[in-house]
Amino acid sequence: MAVYTDVDDGELIAFVQRYNVGELLSFKGIAEGVENTNYLVETTSGRFILTLYEKRVDHADLPFFLSLMSHLSNAGITCPQPLVAGPGGPLGELAGRHAALFSFLDGVWPRNPTAVHTRAVGATLAKLHLAGRSFEMHRRNALSVAGWNDLAGKIGDAADDVAPGLAATLANEVTFLTKQWPSDLPTGVVHADLFPDNVFFLGETLSGVIDFYFACNDLLAYDLAICLNAWCFDRDREFHVTRANALLAGYMSVRPLTAAERDALPLLARGAALRFLLTRTYDWLHTPADAYVKPHDPRAYLHRLRFHQEIASAAEYGLEAVS
Amino acid sequence: MAVYTDVDDGELIAFVQRYNVGELLSFKGIAEGVENTNYLVETTSGRFILTLYEKRVDHADLPFFLSLMSHLSNAGITCPQPLVAGPGGPLGELAGRHAALFSFLDGVWPRNPTAVHTRAVGATLAKLHLAGRSFEMHRRNALSVAGWNDLAGKIGDAADDVAPGLAATLANEVTFLTKQWPSDLPTGVVHADLFPDNVFFLGETLSGVIDFYFACNDLLAYDLAICLNAWCFDRDREFHVTRANALLAGYMSVRPLTAAERDALPLLARGAALRFLLTRTYDWLHTPADAYVKPHDPRAYLHRLRFHQEIASAAEYGLEAVS
Repeated sequence: MAVYTDVDDGELIAFVQRYNVGELLSFKGIAEGVENTNYLVETTSGRFILTLYEKRVDHADLPFFLSLMSHLSNAGITCPQPLVAGPGGPLGELAGRHAALFSFLDGVWPRNPTAVHTRAVGATLAKLHLAGRSFEMHRRNALSVAGWNDLAGKIGDAADDVAPGLAATLANEVTFLTKQWPSDLPTGVVHADLFPDNVFFLGETLSGVIDFYFACNDLLAYDLAICLNAWCFDRDREFHVTRANALLAGYMSVRPLTAAERDALPLLARGAALRFLLTRTYDWLHTPADAYVKPHDPRAYLHRLRFHQEIASAAEYGLEAVS
Repeated sequence: MAVYTDVDDGELIAFVQRYNVGELLSFKGIAEGVENTNYLVETTSGRFILTLYEKRVDHADLPFFLSLMSHLSNAGITCPQPLVAGPGGPLGELAGRHAALFSFLDGVWPRNPTAVHTRAVGATLAKLHLAGRSFEMHRRNALSVAGWNDLAGKIGDAADDVAPGLAATLANEVTFLTKQWPSDLPTGVVHADLFPDNVFFLGETLSGVIDFYFACNDLLAYDLAICLNAWCFDRDREFHVTRANALLAGYMSVRPLTAAERDALPLLARGAALRFLLTRTYDWLHTPADAYVKPHDPRAYLHRLRFHQEIASAAEYGLEAVS
């Protein structure tokens, strides 16, 4: 949560005018998103999210992200829709940053997810994967296997400051997954960061998906494995088989997994755990003490990695009910 | 700007239900207020501000603040109106904090105030002072002369780390103002913190006043002197006589200053500058490097103090046009 960039009211009024959304009524910096600065903007025609892109997002990727949100929104996935400001497209400049204005989504993200939530998340993720088939742009996943190797190298022995033996665990796991990582599974556009704080609900109905700034092309089932890690462990780090079963059932109600995807699930879940273990370990070691954003404790993902290392088959994730 | 306390969606839904404002649609932590945590809450019946009171606010003062906001709001001063949750009154508990729900005010605070803004601020401040006459509760100003002496003592020689010679300046000024401080000027309820970020405008029309958490009983003209410091110096710390003249004219169009208040204005402005110089110096020296809220540079107020020390009569603030 952070507001990195202050916006001048006069400049904002001029910026908003380009989008033909009426007169500015209010704007408040909101504690949402760790990479960018977000404001909730209200005008005489409605509510919007203004995003200022900070340096952690590669600006060359912005057309991919914005086009993807437009594409998914048009395909019926409720996500922030970038507004277009005349012939220049959705992207503008404000306070020295690239900036865009998006439709506002109602809903709250579930602090205590239940199987009702994970079933809806699974179904929406599958719909997103199907809708992504007709999206023509591509973005490589910089945080897949090759990226893990780089990141583990950058972290090095410092990992042992986070947990004893972590440096060896990371190195061994990268070696293992590099050898075993599947290359023949269905690929497409993945969200790659579908954590609970990126999914809104109204009551028990999923009302929107946000934060597409890790979206890329990768294995579709890997995206599901990320959700398995993000949604199906409780605060005591225990695996919730009921939530996992609902997530998988929800997904397969829209897009059945192939036999190969199902078999690969424990391996993909290890990879997903390793990916967040690596980035969280790196951030933990490199975030200055005076940073606005406090890093996540990486050890929750070390626990998940160890859990998945013991999984022999996808049935243990609760797949029995949907097999 | 800070969100100190995270709120659970389930607890918030239960909290909001007590106020009979419909179903929760969304809530976002907003970067507003340095003392408390604020959320922008939207329900099927409108928009509200949820405030969670953190430890810097003395909870015994909350009834004064909330009653004052109700009183002023009923008297036609547009300010956050606390919603009442049945017989328990406006104050509730959420996430282990005292909490209240307020009406939402449209408007944006002016980053570059003009004389149009300061005239409106002056007039609204005077209306607030008149409306305060019929408010029956009292709160002592802990940050008046006696409080300055305590604070200067707590800061001590460390002040010289902020600016060379500052410790002596603070001690001398406290001594001088303690002797000279007027006791026979009109008193009443004052806002005591009416900085630009606490005043909203829609275009050039003042649309609301927020943040009453320093409000108390004190000299009315001292409140105007705080505004003189807060609104009438530019980013280069230069005094803006046009804005000051408009501020004073706006105030006197609603409540003319007495001759004694006018004569005391340079002294009150010194006191107002000292009050913020002291608290900002203290915060500058005592804010941990990893705090969410970055302290203000106290030296802007040292500059203001020196400016007011050279003022011989209130006419130099641009009072000629309204004398």
